[in-house]
Amino acid sequence: MKKDAKTRIVVIGGGTGIFAVLVGLKKYFHNLTAIVTMADEGGSTGILREEFGILPPGDIRRALLALSREENKILFELFNYRFREGKSLSGHSFGNLMITALERLTGSFEKAVGEAAKMLGTQGDVLPVTLRQTRLWAELENRQIIRGETNIDIPRHDGRVRIKRAWLSPPVIINPRAEKAILRADIVVIGPGDLYTSLIPNILVRGVKPAFKKTRAKVVYLVNLMTKLGETSGFRASDFLKVMERYVGKNVIDYVVVSSKRPKPNRLRPYAQEESFWVKLDRENFPSSRRRGNKRGPMLVIGNLVRPRGFIRHDSEKTAKLIWSLV
Amino acid sequence: MKKDAKTRIVVIGGGTGIFAVLVGLKKYFHNLTAIVTMADEGGSTGILREEFGILPPGDIRRALLALSREENKILFELFNYRFREGKSLSGHSFGNLMITALERLTGSFEKAVGEAAKMLGTQGDVLPVTLRQTRLWAELENRQIIRGETNIDIPRHDGRVRIKRAWLSPPVIINPRAEKAILRADIVVIGPGDLYTSLIPNILVRGVKPAFKKTRAKVVYLVNLMTKLGETSGFRASDFLKVMERYVGKNVIDYVVVSSKRPKPNRLRPYAQEESFWVKLDRENFPSSRRRGNKRGPMLVIGNLVRPRGFIRHDSEKTAKLIWSLV
Repeated sequence: MKKDAKTRIVVIGGGTGIFAVLVGLKKYFHNLTAIVTMADEGGSTGILREEFGILPPGDIRRALLALSREENKILFELFNYRFREGKSLSGHSFGNLMITALERLTGSFEKAVGEAAKMLGTQGDVLPVTLRQTRLWAELENRQIIRGETNIDIPRHDGRVRIKRAWLSPPVIINPRAEKAILRADIVVIGPGDLYTSLIPNILVRGVKPAFKKTRAKVVYLVNLMTKLGETSGFRASDFLKVMERYVGKNVIDYVVVSSKRPKPNRLRPYAQEESFWVKLDRENFPSSRRRGNKRGPMLVIGNLVRPRGFIRHDSEKTAKLIWSLV
Repeated sequence: MKKDAKTRIVVIGGGTGIFAVLVGLKKYFHNLTAIVTMADEGGSTGILREEFGILPPGDIRRALLALSREENKILFELFNYRFREGKSLSGHSFGNLMITALERLTGSFEKAVGEAAKMLGTQGDVLPVTLRQTRLWAELENRQIIRGETNIDIPRHDGRVRIKRAWLSPPVIINPRAEKAILRADIVVIGPGDLYTSLIPNILVRGVKPAFKKTRAKVVYLVNLMTKLGETSGFRASDFLKVMERYVGKNVIDYVVVSSKRPKPNRLRPYAQEESFWVKLDRENFPSSRRRGNKRGPMLVIGNLVRPRGFIRHDSEKTAKLIWSLV
């Protein structure tokens, strides 16, 4: 298969969600950029942020791995390795430590990411959405204020109370290279990923929303497959779109992609224990193509994007093919 | 300058001592092997040994760095980087962490060293002297027993009491590749390095002494420039040779290299504070070439091998040239 060398694809997100999408897309497209949230503060990343005052390396690491060439097998494994022993090291991801050391050596997080990308031989760029330190905050419907990404991601509050609004404090401005990538893109893919902790923290960065307004790229929003306690409890597909449009703006998203084929009960069961459920496609709440008429608005794209086995995640190949079909 | 592609050089030692020698030799010789002590248990290395039960990575790291190609500048710096912040990471060498992670990934310390060598593009092999875990012990002249390399290296006992004997417990056997390297070598260079904590722990490994006996290589012993409290207090050049021959055997060393030109007092002064003094060349205690007659015995080689500035260490270039002249 010959890769598409011309189309410029940008994927924006964080967490583990965009990994599969990037892995799939790199087979089809040459010109690929991942823009990654800088709000993460859990686990190994959280410790490194606190102790070194660096930007969060975790999501960057995952995107670099997704785009790395397969030839560098041992470096890939090394970068992906997590220490499981040792008082001081247990839980740390080696890739995170590498980005941290490179940051200290080069004096810049951006340069550190660039050097790691060179070593891994990534196909495409990985860009922090901002180069400034910030923190994610949220206010719940019950007026409770939640400070920090981890406290939203792993809720200690009642996870069924919905989030009213989220913001970054201090406010931070977009990484100029990320802005340029969005403006020049032919397709921008948002997600998949945790709505409030992986996707919206990107949109909240100053300059991202204007870039989305300005770009001539087709914007594709990949709706999650499963709901998440503390973020999207009880959400149906239209709820995801509604919240996303609240942050990114109306008339920005061109395609909203929803997976229709619910996995078998035995695969859903372990999720139910964590109060995570299959996202129902509520067609009635999407404007039909007839009703949409000439008015610009997202077109609902329905596909079967779920991996055939294991965790309920987007299948790399199927998702990439669907995006390819939208070019 | 064209490099010598034929002569097989082996350098055996540990610590920071052999670094300069390897850096110099790689300019002159293609076929270079470093055999490295596995007795180190200080600092970052000590923590990793204890927490991961791995062989000590520190001296391996230094030898790999010494032999790395200069093109890999950032990887070199990364491998050499030491964390200075962070409760959990401060003091850890990134290169040590990398060898540790590689050991876990490949399941073998030897493979880990090989993978690190590939990444750094080292010119020549770096071999652990043994692939088994062991510990260095020493008995002092006052019958006190000292357990562990660090306690000899950084003495908590009276450092002026001489070491009576040193041994490894449990006894361990030579790495077959290290044995082969010694047997096939044209020149084997011992040192420079801390006599009891970097050099002798190699000789104490079972199979090393027989390999020295058997090899047709010329054996060169580079005597230290400075004495060291707790190991070689009050030693003159002949004392170094005497102790080394006690462990490696008589009629093994062909050349004993001593540096004759004492550095200026202002360079020696900081050393005196740590009770470290210039090693005097006591010619009277070396057999003259006439007295040596036909009997095999080490030939005294006198050179000015001290770096012109900074720490009193062997100069890479001068030392390499001297060894080159012995081929």
